[in-house]
Amino acid sequence: MKKRLFTPGPTPIPESVMLTMAEPIIHHRNPEFVEILTSVNQNLKYLFQTKNEVLTLTSSGTGAMEATVANLLSAGDKAIFVNLGKFGERWGEIMKAYGVEPVEIKVEWGTAPSPELILDALQKNPGVKAVFITHSETSTGVFTNIKEIAAAVHEKYDIAVVVDGITSVGAHEMRFDEWGLDVIVTGSQKGLMVPPGLAFAALSDRAKKMLETSKFPKYYFSFKKALKAHAGNDTPFTPAITLIIGLEKALRMIKEETVESIWLKHKVLSQAVRSGCEAIGLKLFGSPASHAVTAVNIPEGVEYSKFNKILKQKYGITTAGGQEHLKGKIFRVSHLGYYDEVDIVGVVAALEWTLHDLNFKFEPGSGVTAVQQTFAKFAEETAGVVK
Amino acid sequence: MKKRLFTPGPTPIPESVMLTMAEPIIHHRNPEFVEILTSVNQNLKYLFQTKNEVLTLTSSGTGAMEATVANLLSAGDKAIFVNLGKFGERWGEIMKAYGVEPVEIKVEWGTAPSPELILDALQKNPGVKAVFITHSETSTGVFTNIKEIAAAVHEKYDIAVVVDGITSVGAHEMRFDEWGLDVIVTGSQKGLMVPPGLAFAALSDRAKKMLETSKFPKYYFSFKKALKAHAGNDTPFTPAITLIIGLEKALRMIKEETVESIWLKHKVLSQAVRSGCEAIGLKLFGSPASHAVTAVNIPEGVEYSKFNKILKQKYGITTAGGQEHLKGKIFRVSHLGYYDEVDIVGVVAALEWTLHDLNFKFEPGSGVTAVQQTFAKFAEETAGVVK
Repeated sequence: MKKRLFTPGPTPIPESVMLTMAEPIIHHRNPEFVEILTSVNQNLKYLFQTKNEVLTLTSSGTGAMEATVANLLSAGDKAIFVNLGKFGERWGEIMKAYGVEPVEIKVEWGTAPSPELILDALQKNPGVKAVFITHSETSTGVFTNIKEIAAAVHEKYDIAVVVDGITSVGAHEMRFDEWGLDVIVTGSQKGLMVPPGLAFAALSDRAKKMLETSKFPKYYFSFKKALKAHAGNDTPFTPAITLIIGLEKALRMIKEETVESIWLKHKVLSQAVRSGCEAIGLKLFGSPASHAVTAVNIPEGVEYSKFNKILKQKYGITTAGGQEHLKGKIFRVSHLGYYDEVDIVGVVAALEWTLHDLNFKFEPGSGVTAVQQTFAKFAEETAGVVK
Repeated sequence: MKKRLFTPGPTPIPESVMLTMAEPIIHHRNPEFVEILTSVNQNLKYLFQTKNEVLTLTSSGTGAMEATVANLLSAGDKAIFVNLGKFGERWGEIMKAYGVEPVEIKVEWGTAPSPELILDALQKNPGVKAVFITHSETSTGVFTNIKEIAAAVHEKYDIAVVVDGITSVGAHEMRFDEWGLDVIVTGSQKGLMVPPGLAFAALSDRAKKMLETSKFPKYYFSFKKALKAHAGNDTPFTPAITLIIGLEKALRMIKEETVESIWLKHKVLSQAVRSGCEAIGLKLFGSPASHAVTAVNIPEGVEYSKFNKILKQKYGITTAGGQEHLKGKIFRVSHLGYYDEVDIVGVVAALEWTLHDLNFKFEPGSGVTAVQQTFAKFAEETAGVVK
C-alpha cells in the first residue's frame, strides 16, 4: 500500500532532497561544504525575510526555543507567554526550568490571543523583558497574528517579541525585519521539507543586544558562538551535514517558487481541506485557522481510534490525533511543506471513505467537490502556483 | 576522481545505511519507528556493554558533553578535567560556561594522564564531584587507559568518572558496566558509521542518582526527560528520524560483526597505518596511540598546506590537519568506523605518492609493504575479521 504522511512534522521530503542526502558524505570543513552552508545562510535570510543572520542549530525545534530563553534572559527575569496549546505552553515550561518568572496568558485551546490581551498583561506586569508567542499552534491548528502583536507591543515597549514559528515558517506570510520581530525559531522537518534534526533562529538587533546581558549557562546552544561561526559560514560544532545538504536543495526550491507563492499555496490548500471537511459535515476545531495544519472535531458517534486505524491501515494515510485534553476529540491534517492539490483531493477522498466505512452520514463526493470548488475559486490568483 | 574521507568525523557511511535513510520518511510515533528505536536502544546497550539505558540525543557530541555537565553537577561544584588536547580542554570550557569549579590537569598534548596523576589531583582537591577524561583524544591521536583510571578512582572515591568516548566507542575496548564507568558519551558520525546529528550518553546508577541533586537549568538536554521517554522506547522531542533509521542498520552490522571483532579490527588497522608511516620515515605524534586516529608529524622540509593539497586534489584523500598550536605541524589519518584493509593500503600508498611528489626521501613501496606485513602478523588472530 502507498503510504502518505499528513502530519505536521515530519512532513514529506522531496525525493530529490532525499537522494542528495544519500550521496557520499563530505567533511564540514571542505570548501564544497562551506559553499553549501553559504547558500543555506543566504537562502534562509530570504525565507525569513531578514537581513540579519539566521542561525542553524543541530537539534529539534525545542532546542532552538530553549536556546532563545537561555541566550536572551537571565534567572529572575519576567517574561510573558501565551498558553494557547501544547506548544505555547512549552514556552512556559522552558521558562520554569530556567527560573524565568513566567507571566502566563491562558486562552482557551482553539483560540488565539489578541494584541489587546498582550498589552493588558504588559500593563499589569511591569518589567517584562520579552513576550513569547506562537505563530501557528500545531496542537490546535490556530493562527496568531504576530504582525499585529509585534506592532502593538513595540509601539509602547522596547522589549523582545519572540515567536515560535515552527509550523509557520514557509507556510504563513512572515516578514521578520519589516514586522519588527526579535526572534523567530523553526525546525527542519516542517515547512522546510527536510528530515528532523535542524533548528533555526533569526535574531533582531534588539535580540543580539540581549545576548550581552544574559547570564544563563550555555555552550552548545550559545548564540554568540553560533553568530561568530556564522560570520565565516561555519558552525561552532559538527553540524548534521547530510541534513544541511538536503536543506540547501530544499531552500533553492523555495527560492525558485518564491515565498509569496508558497504562502499563497498554503492558504489555498488549507482552505480546500477546510471546505472539504465542512462539506462532509465535519466541524472544524479552533480559529483563526493556521495554514499549516487543520484541526477537525471527531464527529459524534465516531470513535477516534477506529477512524484513525481505518484511515491508516486501509487507506495508507497518517494524520495526527489530538494532544493532552484534546486526545480522541480532534484529528489534525497537515498541509505544511511539500504538498499540492492532488494530495489534498486525495486526503479528503480518504476521509470520505473512512467516514463512510464508519457509517457516518454524508453525501459521498461532497468533500472532494468542495475541494475542487475551492481550487476553482482561487484559480486566477494561483495560476501556475498551486499546481 | 574518487574521493575518500580519512577524517575522524564525519567518517564514511556504509552505502546501505545511506540508502535506508533516503527512503520515504516515517512518523516518529508510528509503530514502525517505535520498533526501530527499540532495536537501537537494545543494540546501543550491546555496543556500550551495559545493562543501563544509553540515551540518544539529537545534537552533536558536544551537546552530550554539555548535557552531562548540566545534568550531573550544580554551580560551584568542583570537578577535575584533563587537558590533553582540544577535546579534553572542552570539558573545562563547558565547566567554566556553567560555573563549575574546574580542577585542570594539564598534560603535554600528545601524552595521556596516568591513574596516579588523577589520584594526586583528587588528594589535593577535596570535594571533587566528578573526573572528566577523554578515551581517545581526537586532536592528538592519544589513548587514555580509562579502565585503570576508573578502577583507581573508585577504589578510593565514591565520585563519577565521566568519559568522552566520542572517537573511542566502537574502536576501543570499552565495557561500561564491568569497568565501573559513570557516563560515556559519543556521537553518530564516528565509530557508529552514521552521519552527524546524534549523540549518546550511557549512565551508571551513580550518575542517575546525581540527576536528582543537579540544579542547573535544562530542558532539551534533560536526562530525566530522556530516561522517562526511553522507558517507552520514545524520545522527549522529535528526534533526527532518518539518522536513527540509519543507525539501526549500522548497529545491526556492528552486532553481527561483534564488538570484540570491531575492537580488534581497529587495533590492527591502526598498527598498520603506524607501521606504514614509520617505514616511510615519518615520525608518529603522541603516545599511547588511539586506535581511531593516527597523528603523524609533518616531516622537516615539507609544507603542510602543499602536502594536504596534493593528497586531496591529486589523490582524492581527505585527512585532518593539526588543531590549535599543532596546526601545520601534524596531520591525522582516521581509521574509525567503516574501514578495512584495502582502505589502509590505499591511504598509505597515497601518502607515499604525495611525499614523493614533494621530494621527501624514502624507499618507494616501503609504506605499503609494512602495512602488508602488519596484516600478515595479525593474520591468525584476525582470520575472518579484518577482511
